[in-house]
Amino acid sequence: MLLEAIYHRPKSNYAYAYDEKTIHIRVRTKRDDMDQVFLLHCDKYNLNETGFTKVEMKKIASDSLFDYYHAEAQPEFRRFAYLFQFISGEETVAMNEVGFVTDKEFDDATVLFATGLFEYPFLNAIDVNKPPQWVKDAIFYQIFPERFGNGDPSLNPEKIEDWETAKPERDNFFGGDLQGVIDHLDHLVELGINCIYFTPIFEATTNHKYDTVDYMKVDPHFGDNELAKTLVAKCHEKGIKVMLDAVFNHSGYFFGPFQDVVKNGEASKYKDWFYIREFPIVAEPKPNYDTFAFTGQMPKLNTEHPEVKAYLLEVARYWIADIGCDGWRLDVANEVDHQFWREFRQVVKGANPDAYILGEIWHNSLPWLQGDQFDAVMNYPVTNSILEFFCKDQIDAEEFMGRLDAMMLAYPQQVNETAFNLLDSHDTARLLTICNEDKKRMKLAATFQLTYMGAPCIYYGDEFGMTGGNDPDCRKPMVWNKEKQDHELFDYYKEMIKLRKENRALRDGSFRFIEAAKGSKHIVFEREADGNRFVVVMNGGTEAVEVQMPGSFDVVTGNGTIDGEKVSVGALEYVVLKGK
Amino acid sequence: MLLEAIYHRPKSNYAYAYDEKTIHIRVRTKRDDMDQVFLLHCDKYNLNETGFTKVEMKKIASDSLFDYYHAEAQPEFRRFAYLFQFISGEETVAMNEVGFVTDKEFDDATVLFATGLFEYPFLNAIDVNKPPQWVKDAIFYQIFPERFGNGDPSLNPEKIEDWETAKPERDNFFGGDLQGVIDHLDHLVELGINCIYFTPIFEATTNHKYDTVDYMKVDPHFGDNELAKTLVAKCHEKGIKVMLDAVFNHSGYFFGPFQDVVKNGEASKYKDWFYIREFPIVAEPKPNYDTFAFTGQMPKLNTEHPEVKAYLLEVARYWIADIGCDGWRLDVANEVDHQFWREFRQVVKGANPDAYILGEIWHNSLPWLQGDQFDAVMNYPVTNSILEFFCKDQIDAEEFMGRLDAMMLAYPQQVNETAFNLLDSHDTARLLTICNEDKKRMKLAATFQLTYMGAPCIYYGDEFGMTGGNDPDCRKPMVWNKEKQDHELFDYYKEMIKLRKENRALRDGSFRFIEAAKGSKHIVFEREADGNRFVVVMNGGTEAVEVQMPGSFDVVTGNGTIDGEKVSVGALEYVVLKGK
Repeated sequence: MLLEAIYHRPKSNYAYAYDEKTIHIRVRTKRDDMDQVFLLHCDKYNLNETGFTKVEMKKIASDSLFDYYHAEAQPEFRRFAYLFQFISGEETVAMNEVGFVTDKEFDDATVLFATGLFEYPFLNAIDVNKPPQWVKDAIFYQIFPERFGNGDPSLNPEKIEDWETAKPERDNFFGGDLQGVIDHLDHLVELGINCIYFTPIFEATTNHKYDTVDYMKVDPHFGDNELAKTLVAKCHEKGIKVMLDAVFNHSGYFFGPFQDVVKNGEASKYKDWFYIREFPIVAEPKPNYDTFAFTGQMPKLNTEHPEVKAYLLEVARYWIADIGCDGWRLDVANEVDHQFWREFRQVVKGANPDAYILGEIWHNSLPWLQGDQFDAVMNYPVTNSILEFFCKDQIDAEEFMGRLDAMMLAYPQQVNETAFNLLDSHDTARLLTICNEDKKRMKLAATFQLTYMGAPCIYYGDEFGMTGGNDPDCRKPMVWNKEKQDHELFDYYKEMIKLRKENRALRDGSFRFIEAAKGSKHIVFEREADGNRFVVVMNGGTEAVEVQMPGSFDVVTGNGTIDGEKVSVGALEYVVLKGK
Repeated sequence: MLLEAIYHRPKSNYAYAYDEKTIHIRVRTKRDDMDQVFLLHCDKYNLNETGFTKVEMKKIASDSLFDYYHAEAQPEFRRFAYLFQFISGEETVAMNEVGFVTDKEFDDATVLFATGLFEYPFLNAIDVNKPPQWVKDAIFYQIFPERFGNGDPSLNPEKIEDWETAKPERDNFFGGDLQGVIDHLDHLVELGINCIYFTPIFEATTNHKYDTVDYMKVDPHFGDNELAKTLVAKCHEKGIKVMLDAVFNHSGYFFGPFQDVVKNGEASKYKDWFYIREFPIVAEPKPNYDTFAFTGQMPKLNTEHPEVKAYLLEVARYWIADIGCDGWRLDVANEVDHQFWREFRQVVKGANPDAYILGEIWHNSLPWLQGDQFDAVMNYPVTNSILEFFCKDQIDAEEFMGRLDAMMLAYPQQVNETAFNLLDSHDTARLLTICNEDKKRMKLAATFQLTYMGAPCIYYGDEFGMTGGNDPDCRKPMVWNKEKQDHELFDYYKEMIKLRKENRALRDGSFRFIEAAKGSKHIVFEREADGNRFVVVMNGGTEAVEVQMPGSFDVVTGNGTIDGEKVSVGALEYVVLKGK
């Protein structure tokens, strides 16, 4: 038994409240090391009377080095002290917070080990991370407003390019606006979308609007606040929610308060709204104030300053409470202070307890997901794993499983259930382009995304086969010319979305890899809820595979041939099966 | 190289801001596995231009399974992306957030590995855990007010026992009060105390006062609020701070609002101040409401309720702002919701930014020590290790080192520097009794406490050799009869406290075990600050030991014989040495 591999951490992804009654406990061991793992838990104030309850833990995930075991409990008095028991062959080991006891006289050791227990000391309802339940059912669609639809030419920027023929450049404009979105809502309804994620719509000078000039005002080229309110109302009528992009880490250079500092220097009453290193302000070649990255156009906001905080929190409240939006996606969320996000959460949930708070963080985000800050994060580690396995053929099935399982275990389950799973965006090349325009690979990636935990997000136009390299090429105007749309792809997306919406198992059911072998290019996984069991076989390899099914199944969609309990799936094909 | 043993977790005890400029990074490896460990860090927005800075990490701690490496950095732009490199013999391995690359072509691997870096994304000053600096210099003294001094007999409870001869029982009284503390402040000054920790002083029915009746009022047997204010002022005049005990997890049965629920049941406007499972209220034999442990006399407060919160936060503010106290010790702190503690911190630090917030938590407390809740916790894991090694002879030197080093690595350094290190209290047997009345063992334990990191706390009367078994025996009235006081012990404490106060190295200097071998009963450790280097040799064994010193040293205190660079220390003796 490899003691060095055993890991547990109280009040973390290894021990958390799933809901107001249920505590989830997980522990990590070396891969294939244990025969059995037990959780022993008790009420520490009552140990002498009632002793320990012993629960066998279930292996729910594995990566190349480790296995992960899981158990849960609903302690009557909402408190919980515990230790673990590991069995491997003849060897029995107990672990509490202080360390290990390796002893065959295990029962004595357990009693002895009752001092130094791990604790979940009390399950206080207010501390539970409770993401909005609607996100479990959400199909997101990301819109870059300058490029989705031009519904009101009177608002066009001074110079716009031809929608169908011009190339997107870093600084050109095409005239997209909010009316253009309203005009095309039926397209989203047909596809099955029930939430739009808008990149910024507030007044700014660039086409991407990440350089905010006024957080309280829709960009004049997109419309006005009244029109935004109309758009939200029309979306709601059609069962579509709306999430906006909050760029609170930094403002734009032309943000009023920053301009005041540019003009008045140290005398500006806004000088402490930013981190100015010296006066007067110099933006080029190297800004003498803190910025996003090293971009002088994006001065970093001092979100610790009470006035900045008051201003941004009113922004946070206004768009939810007064305009009716349903959530915020937080740009560069990891560089803003935690204290700000805690207050932000209070304000946003105060305005609408069901609002979704989604952080843009590219790395492990647990410190933001403890119930006091975000509901969930953009799931880039999952994105990268899907792209590397299905699209770029860079990793094998075991590595894919290992990365996904490690991420699944890195967060509380409710966070995974409401994570935001994207495959591409305005910041990356488009999915079809990442796949070297191989539609089969694209469908493999999308099928996994649409049958995995977490809310999928489709980048506008992917459903019609739009291509595009890295920014700005991925920001082409939406293809509304029917002749240029890939209708077969659209039908694929529509069917997969419908399948997901009709089957809870594919949204927040349990998830388990059945096959993901070293060196192999195909995976088999299972999802189950309410007695409905799905198995998905996906072949990322260039040869057909034959898979032994765990029981009797029917084909729901995809290309696969069933022969008894065997399923054959061709190269770069997949099949979704449902238990009989 | 054992990959399974390598562990790092971003934004935790393994990666935190030490102050507004400095980031500490630590990583764990299998014990004695590595030749060298490197931290490679960069500004992720500038990686292509500036590349990685490579820093060799220092092994700062070990336990029986693991070594712990440490490095620090002050990145110019307050942000930081990083990975690790491990070297063991011919083998070189890199680890980022996604996993390992085992490759001898390490330089390529590093570049390749720049996606998926660990991140400390931004060091925001407001998020830094900044415990009050005065705590580093504090010598605490715990007073159980009913038993310290009877300064005003007119306030005596109806029936009191004889101070010198009666035995403390669960429910008897001796007449101690606040005037009794005022009368004896010079004793504390002589001993060298600069902070008193009072167990509860608020109105309550018991002698220990943990069953609060009125949080806004000094217990009438102790005095009144004016007298408390006078006491605090007199303490401050003498350079002594005052910390009170906040029992916010539960009230007493006779707390006004609870009595209202007892009387009016479901009609009480206070019914949601508690967790009532059914009406009418029944306290015996099993309470039908949530309590501390299963104690009907201590109904659990619903600290999520806005009115409860407002009431308790006003209590928190009042005793700091209006009475002048310097800190709160939080009773059963781990069972109250985190959200409450976050607001509590805002209120307390708002009233006095230098107030000390100390949680009573017996297990690992990192979730409360992230800068948003407590400054530090009562360091029971360290307490237990000291008692088991020096007093009870239950563990060997290696185990002692392993436990202390693991705890040192379990928290940010600033938390360890301001932790509250007690050896006994009103909840345990007295130190001398734990030592089976062996004063040599008692002095070993106290010497370690007084030369270790964190603020030591002396339980009233220990300095005079008071004895006492578990509660209530440990709560005897203070020995003021000079003939019954152990003056030799008093002189010992006085000298050690003076030594600590005169030498910063012994307070918040670096700490490192030099010797702590398996099966051995003696330890050697080093503390250093400002070029002053101390080595302490402590022999918990029953035979003399001879130790090779790392250089040339003078004896500062204790019993030890220097012969060149060798020091001999007798059974159950210690010696404190200072580098020449």
